[in-house]
Amino acid sequence: MSRFLNENLKGLKEYTPGEQPQDKKYIKLNTNESPYPPSKEVVEAVNENEVKDLRLYCDPECSKLKSALAKLYNVKTENVFLSNGSDDILNFSFLAFGQNGVAFADITYGFYSVFADLYSLEKEIIPLNDDFTLNKQAFMNKNKLTVIANPNAPTGITLSLNEIEKIVESNKQNVVLIDEAYVDFGGESAISLTEKYDNLLCVGTFSKSRSMAGARLGFAIANKEIIADLEKIKYSTNPYNINRLTQVAGLAAVKSNNYFMENCKKIIKTREYTAKTLKELNFEVLDSKSNFLFAKHKSLGGKEFYLSLKEKGVLVRHFETERIKDFVRITIGSFEEMQVFLDKTKEILGE
Amino acid sequence: MSRFLNENLKGLKEYTPGEQPQDKKYIKLNTNESPYPPSKEVVEAVNENEVKDLRLYCDPECSKLKSALAKLYNVKTENVFLSNGSDDILNFSFLAFGQNGVAFADITYGFYSVFADLYSLEKEIIPLNDDFTLNKQAFMNKNKLTVIANPNAPTGITLSLNEIEKIVESNKQNVVLIDEAYVDFGGESAISLTEKYDNLLCVGTFSKSRSMAGARLGFAIANKEIIADLEKIKYSTNPYNINRLTQVAGLAAVKSNNYFMENCKKIIKTREYTAKTLKELNFEVLDSKSNFLFAKHKSLGGKEFYLSLKEKGVLVRHFETERIKDFVRITIGSFEEMQVFLDKTKEILGE
Repeated sequence: MSRFLNENLKGLKEYTPGEQPQDKKYIKLNTNESPYPPSKEVVEAVNENEVKDLRLYCDPECSKLKSALAKLYNVKTENVFLSNGSDDILNFSFLAFGQNGVAFADITYGFYSVFADLYSLEKEIIPLNDDFTLNKQAFMNKNKLTVIANPNAPTGITLSLNEIEKIVESNKQNVVLIDEAYVDFGGESAISLTEKYDNLLCVGTFSKSRSMAGARLGFAIANKEIIADLEKIKYSTNPYNINRLTQVAGLAAVKSNNYFMENCKKIIKTREYTAKTLKELNFEVLDSKSNFLFAKHKSLGGKEFYLSLKEKGVLVRHFETERIKDFVRITIGSFEEMQVFLDKTKEILGE
Repeated sequence: MSRFLNENLKGLKEYTPGEQPQDKKYIKLNTNESPYPPSKEVVEAVNENEVKDLRLYCDPECSKLKSALAKLYNVKTENVFLSNGSDDILNFSFLAFGQNGVAFADITYGFYSVFADLYSLEKEIIPLNDDFTLNKQAFMNKNKLTVIANPNAPTGITLSLNEIEKIVESNKQNVVLIDEAYVDFGGESAISLTEKYDNLLCVGTFSKSRSMAGARLGFAIANKEIIADLEKIKYSTNPYNINRLTQVAGLAAVKSNNYFMENCKKIIKTREYTAKTLKELNFEVLDSKSNFLFAKHKSLGGKEFYLSLKEKGVLVRHFETERIKDFVRITIGSFEEMQVFLDKTKEILGE
């Protein structure tokens, strides 16, 4: 830390991303990446001419991509915001709408707490129920920015559209942000409600279901006034934040959406098989509608399991948080990868 | 604007980027892009396998790129910060180091004022001298974040390393940020002073001299403690903000640095020819060490000139700011493009 740093930031504890080993020797089931590459349309779109055009700035409006995404989700372009990954949009949203404080679950995406601290926002941390479901009543009538990951991470547990609507309806004086990073793996998106509720902000990403974690592309869908606020912040910080190649890749991804949705079906099938097998091995496995499982063994500790797997070349994610320290989060990879994971798990349990 | 927006942001006036027409029909001399494509090494580096790997997150540390850049600039990796364009780094710097206010010139990069307003920082706006040189004395002993574009934009006028050092030396209690976006076109970089002064922060970009405006890659070089502060903010907002393909392209660009520096020489040569010709046509042309010229005709108004050129298919940039409203900023394109610009200018003057 330098002697020049803003006093308010000196105590700030930054987010810790999952391990990103650069040597590729692990079966990587720790950061919820897709086992499938982007579509051939994406690969073709990022061609030599596009790379040569890097000399030119990108379109700060992302006009083509925005139109395509609006069409896909059956909204107007004025209802779509694009930015450098969904983290970027979460960051902007906390800055824009968090002035009266922010409410979120105790066990959820770890970045929410960091954003709140960054802007010195008052946090109301609402414990999940004992079974790790969301305490829906506690999210009603907040009068502050209300943030829900649906499906939740790292639990994978989802709320129905009906449950989301009740929460949105009871919070008319504040923004309800639904973080739908994992929604394509079996959740119900609330995008269809954005026309009805001017306080609903749905945030999505191309990182998971669209196999583009490394491209950095997030989107938000909401009432046009909320979108205008997000645009204002983007244009006051970094208007060109989505690079040319990501815009081109994103457009090709929207046009080949079916390919990605078929991949989601494969991942769901692999998830169900993995969950069933883990349960047979005496794991408690939460009911996940995402591309990961959150599981705890009856006798093996979470950290021990994580470390044993790492030694055997399989990376999963373990969190030190007290309430979930016996769990690990396991990304659903290819069927073959999950078979290796299960085999290594059996080895560990047998040792 | 939504009814939910933070009170402090309601009056915020966002930055207005230069026009980015998507139809490509103009000779585009308005946003200081390079007329030359990235090196063949860059084009080769962004290959099919890299696009397929977009399914994986990028390295948030940008380790390879950081090492290469450290080597190029003869500093340690702990002295290098990388982010999503230099705007991103400026944004972080205002947040991190602007708590006691910020000083910058009246005529300079328009974004500084936006960042200051975004974080409600007190602004000291220091007028340039009548000849558009920097009032160096007024930048001494500020006790607040001090920001200087060197060369300055949109004037192109530069400070010597000796002049920069005096300013840095007199400001030991605060960060002096030197924005070196245009330094490769004839300026002197202050990077060599970062070892000596712990309050000096040099910010660079791959957008101009390295022909990668559309890739979004900026870097900062400073004392390791300043770098650690910037990393803290990056990891508290958007740790993965440089996408995979930009990291790959950036690494290839550093490895083919000579190609880009040769392009700078060509641009300087074209700049000098263009300046000489404009002077012959009764333009006042400021002494630019950047990849643009700032010029004013003895009788033709700046806006009129800009609009006439636009009608003839040549885009330059005009600013409405009172003090410079008679000027236009002309990016140096290829020799052929500048010949067209000069021909059209002669036509306009002859009409």
